[in-house]
Amino acid sequence: MINLEKLFSKNALGMKRSEIRELLKVTRRPEIISFAGGLPAPELFPVEEVKEVTDYILEKEGKIALQYGPTEGDTRLKEELVKHMEEEGLKTEVENILVVSASQQALDLVAKVFLNRKDVVFVEEPTYVGGIQAFNSYGARMVPVKSDEDGILPEELEKSIVELIKNGFRSQLKLIYIIPDFQNPSGITTSLERRKSLLEIAEKYDLIVIEDTPYRQLRYRGETVAPIYSLENSGRVISLFTFSKIFAPGFRLGWIVGSKEIIEKIIMAKQAADLCTSPFTQSITYEYLRRGYLKKQIKLIKENYKEKMEIMLESLEKEMPSLEGLKWTKPDGGLFLWVTLPEYMDSRELFLKAIDKKVAYVVGDAFHPQAKMKNAFRLNFSYPSPKKIREGVKRLADAISEYNDEIKGKKLKDAVIFP
Amino acid sequence: MINLEKLFSKNALGMKRSEIRELLKVTRRPEIISFAGGLPAPELFPVEEVKEVTDYILEKEGKIALQYGPTEGDTRLKEELVKHMEEEGLKTEVENILVVSASQQALDLVAKVFLNRKDVVFVEEPTYVGGIQAFNSYGARMVPVKSDEDGILPEELEKSIVELIKNGFRSQLKLIYIIPDFQNPSGITTSLERRKSLLEIAEKYDLIVIEDTPYRQLRYRGETVAPIYSLENSGRVISLFTFSKIFAPGFRLGWIVGSKEIIEKIIMAKQAADLCTSPFTQSITYEYLRRGYLKKQIKLIKENYKEKMEIMLESLEKEMPSLEGLKWTKPDGGLFLWVTLPEYMDSRELFLKAIDKKVAYVVGDAFHPQAKMKNAFRLNFSYPSPKKIREGVKRLADAISEYNDEIKGKKLKDAVIFP
Repeated sequence: MINLEKLFSKNALGMKRSEIRELLKVTRRPEIISFAGGLPAPELFPVEEVKEVTDYILEKEGKIALQYGPTEGDTRLKEELVKHMEEEGLKTEVENILVVSASQQALDLVAKVFLNRKDVVFVEEPTYVGGIQAFNSYGARMVPVKSDEDGILPEELEKSIVELIKNGFRSQLKLIYIIPDFQNPSGITTSLERRKSLLEIAEKYDLIVIEDTPYRQLRYRGETVAPIYSLENSGRVISLFTFSKIFAPGFRLGWIVGSKEIIEKIIMAKQAADLCTSPFTQSITYEYLRRGYLKKQIKLIKENYKEKMEIMLESLEKEMPSLEGLKWTKPDGGLFLWVTLPEYMDSRELFLKAIDKKVAYVVGDAFHPQAKMKNAFRLNFSYPSPKKIREGVKRLADAISEYNDEIKGKKLKDAVIFP
Repeated sequence: MINLEKLFSKNALGMKRSEIRELLKVTRRPEIISFAGGLPAPELFPVEEVKEVTDYILEKEGKIALQYGPTEGDTRLKEELVKHMEEEGLKTEVENILVVSASQQALDLVAKVFLNRKDVVFVEEPTYVGGIQAFNSYGARMVPVKSDEDGILPEELEKSIVELIKNGFRSQLKLIYIIPDFQNPSGITTSLERRKSLLEIAEKYDLIVIEDTPYRQLRYRGETVAPIYSLENSGRVISLFTFSKIFAPGFRLGWIVGSKEIIEKIIMAKQAADLCTSPFTQSITYEYLRRGYLKKQIKLIKENYKEKMEIMLESLEKEMPSLEGLKWTKPDGGLFLWVTLPEYMDSRELFLKAIDKKVAYVVGDAFHPQAKMKNAFRLNFSYPSPKKIREGVKRLADAISEYNDEIKGKKLKDAVIFP
């Protein structure tokens, strides 16, 4: 008989089917208004332009687009990316870029290149689910660091570092993982001052900073904050980018920017992982950028999501019951906002009530490596229509009110039974 | 200062820029006839059909094709794959299939799910470069097992296993990796008897068999040998497939077939590695299969490669000098054949002479985890034209003759100097 428990690697044994993803299945029922996913609005996908560009590529260079390509990625695409990033305040060169199969692969490769089992990654509290999955799949020890409206708290980070060093983990401290712009899930943007403090700490303790920026270009108000990558020269920062939120997730395309030494090592890891990212989708995307379509597309997405975000914020303001401790973030961009419930509430319990009312979200625990964000949840505003946002927030507010009444009632009852 | 040596993982420190890939760069010079690559013939790529199908998919379901998709892969594509494999003698179900970003990713995920550092993978001698890279990237201990014209030698495999167990490595024995049909690099097909013996050994010592089958469908003569997957029921065999050699490598599409328990675990690993394989290229490929284009394409490829293989075999027969120990395999399909040189020759030394004569191959050492295949090399016949094959083999024969004369001359000279 086959004994898989003995045959699987330690890392594989540590991989679990996410309970969260099971919960998410419920949210796919058509009658449910879902704020749970993180999907771009499909009605904005530039299908016509993709068709035009794909036809052109197949006619002009079909035989190249369908062949194997270099592991590093299509040089022409990387040249376009250099220009594109420079407009966003990040100066770099073609040799500092590796094209990957979207930013989840970037996370996987970075984890593979830096992490031995039990090595430490500092993450924001809350942090991105996919980051947790990638780091967990290499047996990492994730240490969450408290954040406020300006991002991660540097003094909390340093306290954690000092304590771990005291406990003998010096050589295992490796990465600081942050999503500085319109964070997933919180919607918060790390301030310039915090970015600088973070870099100082990374420098002081010789750590690598992973700056994951899937939403940076989707800012709906306020001024862009300088990329962390642009704030230092020692090669300590790795920036992760993706086309998933600004173009099309179905292409599975992203890129990593880092020092030449680090990129060189990640190229070796990528060669072993999948040889190269699709030259077909790379060629199409190169041509899409060359024709200036990406800029138009980003403008379109920003207008649409901005409106949806404003509607969601207005609806929350209007519908939510007035409860002490109930609050939500007000992002300047991105796809998400974060609701904090009163401490006596549990977002898993509330989830069941919300589903009864036909509205869904993702529970806070999903965004914490040790599942310790009980009284919070994430709302997505990019996917649902304005009408559904209004109706969904109303349902959610009802669920919270009822849940609150129930708790209070139960407490009252408990008080009667056990006076 | 940043100290990358301290920050990189042990696995990353074990990844080296392949010397072989540096050698391969030379072979890209236009004046060189290269038998070095493993590329499909681009003139056979079905560019027109891809264009037709892509236009159709973008019109009919563009918004789905450009969105995220399930980690497991497109169910419609998997249904087509079930039918496709059944025709090839492999019966399975949709739930036993995971779509991946071509078979290099399959190797990576299988390695991740089964291997701790220092775990043992038995490989054929010689074996596939990409397999070596994938297993090495997880710190595996690769143990080559001698092969003959019928494939891996079961008694050699068992001897290795017994010795490793005696030395205390019992719990680290995990995988047997073989390419049973028209092996890369050797061109050899594992006989049915050997497949059965292999399975018996795997059963006896509770090991997993990885059957990598990129070329199975490209058989030019003789009868198909039953897939190892079809020869047992315990769920001990994992089969890896790719569209790279039968359709287009530029799509980066392949699939894994295994027991539901194993596939479930690999799905978790894939979710952490890249969320999903491109729904865009999956939709196109589904439609391509549905229209029956794949069968036509495989037929076309087989006719073309068969002719090229025959020309290469004829040319070798005609041009090669008659030297004791100089021989080559006569494959029944695939893309490669394997030349063994007399023992006193070194294929790296010969490589330089071959380059002087403007012909290239891949040295044998590339196909051995400890680089111990000095007097052998691989020839590819799918990429070069018939004319170039004839001319290239002539040049290669000249290089071998000259190299032989030089060695004999040197020996003579040595004999004179040191009588």
